[in-house]
Amino acid sequence: MEHLKTYPAFPGWYADVSWPGEAHIYKMEKILFHGKSEFQELLVFETSRHGKIAIPDGYIQLTENDEFAYQEMLIHLALCSIPNPKKGGDGGILREISRHSSVEHIDICEIDKMVIHVYKKFFPDIAVGYEDPRMHVHIRDGVAFINSVPEGAYDVIILDAFPAMGHSADVLADKCFLESIAKALRPRGVLLWHTNSEVADTIANCKIFKGSVNYAWATVPAYVSGAIGFMLCSTEGPPVNFKHPINKLNPEKNGVAKGPPKFYNSEIHATAFFCGQGWLIQQDIHK
Amino acid sequence: MEHLKTYPAFPGWYADVSWPGEAHIYKMEKILFHGKSEFQELLVFETSRHGKIAIPDGYIQLTENDEFAYQEMLIHLALCSIPNPKKGGDGGILREISRHSSVEHIDICEIDKMVIHVYKKFFPDIAVGYEDPRMHVHIRDGVAFINSVPEGAYDVIILDAFPAMGHSADVLADKCFLESIAKALRPRGVLLWHTNSEVADTIANCKIFKGSVNYAWATVPAYVSGAIGFMLCSTEGPPVNFKHPINKLNPEKNGVAKGPPKFYNSEIHATAFFCGQGWLIQQDIHK
Repeated sequence: MEHLKTYPAFPGWYADVSWPGEAHIYKMEKILFHGKSEFQELLVFETSRHGKIAIPDGYIQLTENDEFAYQEMLIHLALCSIPNPKKGGDGGILREISRHSSVEHIDICEIDKMVIHVYKKFFPDIAVGYEDPRMHVHIRDGVAFINSVPEGAYDVIILDAFPAMGHSADVLADKCFLESIAKALRPRGVLLWHTNSEVADTIANCKIFKGSVNYAWATVPAYVSGAIGFMLCSTEGPPVNFKHPINKLNPEKNGVAKGPPKFYNSEIHATAFFCGQGWLIQQDIHK
Repeated sequence: MEHLKTYPAFPGWYADVSWPGEAHIYKMEKILFHGKSEFQELLVFETSRHGKIAIPDGYIQLTENDEFAYQEMLIHLALCSIPNPKKGGDGGILREISRHSSVEHIDICEIDKMVIHVYKKFFPDIAVGYEDPRMHVHIRDGVAFINSVPEGAYDVIILDAFPAMGHSADVLADKCFLESIAKALRPRGVLLWHTNSEVADTIANCKIFKGSVNYAWATVPAYVSGAIGFMLCSTEGPPVNFKHPINKLNPEKNGVAKGPPKFYNSEIHATAFFCGQGWLIQQDIHK
């Protein structure tokens, strides 16, 4: 349990040590799963306040009680911004994509089978997205996958991987990878991914997207900062106006999701692009 | 150091235990102040990521690096919402009030002299508000103070005390105290205070305000949830439309503050009232 040893232990508590000099700690009411695949170490435990929590490689991924904010924003900020999105690429936010009836084909690329099994067993309401008949699951490396698809194949690509997490860090910061993604998108196609820090570097790399580049954010209380940022990029063509969603979600069409979204709506979409000036300066978004 | 012992100690780390079952912990680079008055125990230490942190009685009050979000919103959500605010009451956000040139008289009531001395010494950029010539400092209990002022004395009252903090909890949840505040306000006068939980109870108590009652929020990364909520209430008269600020801050008039606000602007003001539906439901704001 290498990652659990990083900090002196509270017996029965878990320390999320995403950032140096501080940590968010949780009382583990019950450990539900602790396993190791060839790719990562995954821990799932029950808490009194946040429900079940999933922690791959020592970085918190989600808690049952606030995952919706993160996942809904990651999907709907993109899919509500362009007319008639039909084909989605890499990503793990299947339940939310399922609400979009215009979508005809969804490819999900996940390198680690263990993750899918654990989510299906311990987070059935989240993993429900795998049941969507439009879903095509590819168990392989995301970079190899995106390099193998035809040019202009996708309307939308969602990247759901944290730059801070181990080996994926370099890949996401890498211009070449972003270029591969841009190639895989049709003209005016959209990439959405999340970013927590190094916003200035990220924006510099996003210059390869010739359409619109925007930054939005949402609040996710379980993350140490309580907030998460999103980058929205589009390829050449008339600019995509991310700040004014053109598609409203249909409250009667939820795909395989059980019930309507809990966080996202069109007003939240528009306001997500307003950022306190202090944060903007801290994050160098003005550069 | 009673409050520091609540959790098993990380040597050299501090655990903020505001909520049961989880905590935010900080590496203390240097302890700058640790003292006890007749009212509370106050700890000030240096961190690498958040600057100096002030912790009265085991609950985090502010960090140097994000205090502005909280303090600016607490003041400007109120003072930008009504025409020509002139007299402010109880509160500790003096630097921000100072930006409002319409204000003629500011009463600040603080029970504990130690707090003022520590802030002046270790947080001079925050305590700068005490230098405003319109400021009148009253060292006494806030409840007794508010009961002693004439009816209709104030345009605006800002309550800067956490319901979760010891003895002030009962007072803030108490209808009688809110009634005293309502009496101290002129018709269409405004009360603003922050609230983190028990929103349903708070809203029920706010019914004594016959004007507008609204809920807004801001992000403050250092708090465990990363967010804080504000209640905005006005007394009888034409409703105050908190969601659409009528006063813009003048970027050239910052009073004794050194430079313009870092978080607040008119757009942030308006968007602070949009809340993810899921949070609204969790917080029972619909009741």
